[in-house]
Amino acid sequence: MKVAFQGEAGAYSEQALLGHFGAAETLACESFEAVFEAVHAGLCDAAMVPIENSLAGSIHQNYDLLLRHDLQIVGEQSLRVRHCLIALPGVDRQEIRKAISHPQALGQCAGYLRSHGLLAEQAYDTAGSVKLLKASGARDTAAIASRRAADLYGMHILEEGIEDDPENFTRFLAIQRESLAFQGEAKTSIVFTLKNLPGALFKAMSVFALRDIDLTKIESRPLQGSPWEYLFYVDLVGGTGDATVRRALDHLGEYATMLRVLGSYPRFKA
Amino acid sequence: MKVAFQGEAGAYSEQALLGHFGAAETLACESFEAVFEAVHAGLCDAAMVPIENSLAGSIHQNYDLLLRHDLQIVGEQSLRVRHCLIALPGVDRQEIRKAISHPQALGQCAGYLRSHGLLAEQAYDTAGSVKLLKASGARDTAAIASRRAADLYGMHILEEGIEDDPENFTRFLAIQRESLAFQGEAKTSIVFTLKNLPGALFKAMSVFALRDIDLTKIESRPLQGSPWEYLFYVDLVGGTGDATVRRALDHLGEYATMLRVLGSYPRFKA
Repeated sequence: MKVAFQGEAGAYSEQALLGHFGAAETLACESFEAVFEAVHAGLCDAAMVPIENSLAGSIHQNYDLLLRHDLQIVGEQSLRVRHCLIALPGVDRQEIRKAISHPQALGQCAGYLRSHGLLAEQAYDTAGSVKLLKASGARDTAAIASRRAADLYGMHILEEGIEDDPENFTRFLAIQRESLAFQGEAKTSIVFTLKNLPGALFKAMSVFALRDIDLTKIESRPLQGSPWEYLFYVDLVGGTGDATVRRALDHLGEYATMLRVLGSYPRFKA
Repeated sequence: MKVAFQGEAGAYSEQALLGHFGAAETLACESFEAVFEAVHAGLCDAAMVPIENSLAGSIHQNYDLLLRHDLQIVGEQSLRVRHCLIALPGVDRQEIRKAISHPQALGQCAGYLRSHGLLAEQAYDTAGSVKLLKASGARDTAAIASRRAADLYGMHILEEGIEDDPENFTRFLAIQRESLAFQGEAKTSIVFTLKNLPGALFKAMSVFALRDIDLTKIESRPLQGSPWEYLFYVDLVGGTGDATVRRALDHLGEYATMLRVLGSYPRFKA
């Protein structure tokens, strides 16, 4: 099986996909758009993309890409993000003056960097910053990335778990061209639009509340071409195979001007 | 009156604040965080920050900063974003090979750049890219920014309105330390958290729906320290001076584990 992800080898997305798909062949892509295109074009069997971080929030670009591509969410995976301070082998902690990484990783370690007097410098990618550091040979610089990235590039971990908040998880979605049959507790992701009327979203949510269907996430995104109108993305507990969920979606169809099921898939269990 | 904004002189935020506050003295800040700090510390009387773009969606950092600071939303302003292709005086259109600007502006003009064979290069700011271009003296490069930025730096507009989608509006919020009295139609912005129970958000929205209070926006943000729980930001039509709105907020207080009014302010009319 061949699975696409965004970033360089050693990226957190690659770690998530190996956790989900097991020993898969991986395909590194430059952008999220390229990841979706790779699945669509059949260059790979599946993809793993981050959709939400417990500190930074949703990765909105991937919500937009889910809408633009006719692909299926077939699974989810949660990963505890544990950042390492990574240097060239033989470099001592006292030599380090600055840290390079993706802006989000730098932000998640801001307190650590401040208390250790390290300057922050932005790079395009976490694992990519390890690659850059190795190529540059700089002894005064550390990269912030995963343990896996350090191992892959033969670099040295000065400290592990340098993120300021340990409640740092990223939720990933597995995406394929066709949906998969599965057993066990399901989640379903949908996207819809509503007439721009007072109470419209309340009515839409009533179709789930009246049937005791639990919503785990609601996200709004701008509707292109209609300023200040929105698309709503909702994750709910239950599968489209359940009669109650089917009835709720039929009921939502009475209010929705557009409704699409993005996928029913097994709920992630830690 | 002195009003802070993020970016360089000529930024869209500066244009929005002049539209809202009239002839104010402006204070350019490097980051949104610095803008909020400037108001809090009394370095200025007010600030104007973007909260939402009709194509790109919410500026989530400013939602987070509204929560972290004890300031009041006192107004809103909507601005049609009209990007210009800006070059050094005397440069001909045929000489231009690449365009520099903020990544969001480049994205909003991606179709235009492609059809004219121009390379895109990222800069930290729209108006800042005009300043950079002027300093560099490059004749093969154009900046993408507002008409105002071109005028301020004495540069030449090769073409105006190069954005791919004309429905490109940004909504800004005016922020001060104290709320202001006003006449006319009001909007109110609130933020709240709920117990993580099935149907909790439905109940929260019922306090408005049952009173025919119109919601214009709902946004969820991660609750720090509680993975996969959320803060909800809601904009509603009506002011905290209205008995119906006050009753709805009292009612919401029965379900909410936290509830804060971020401000009641006059609704923007184009």
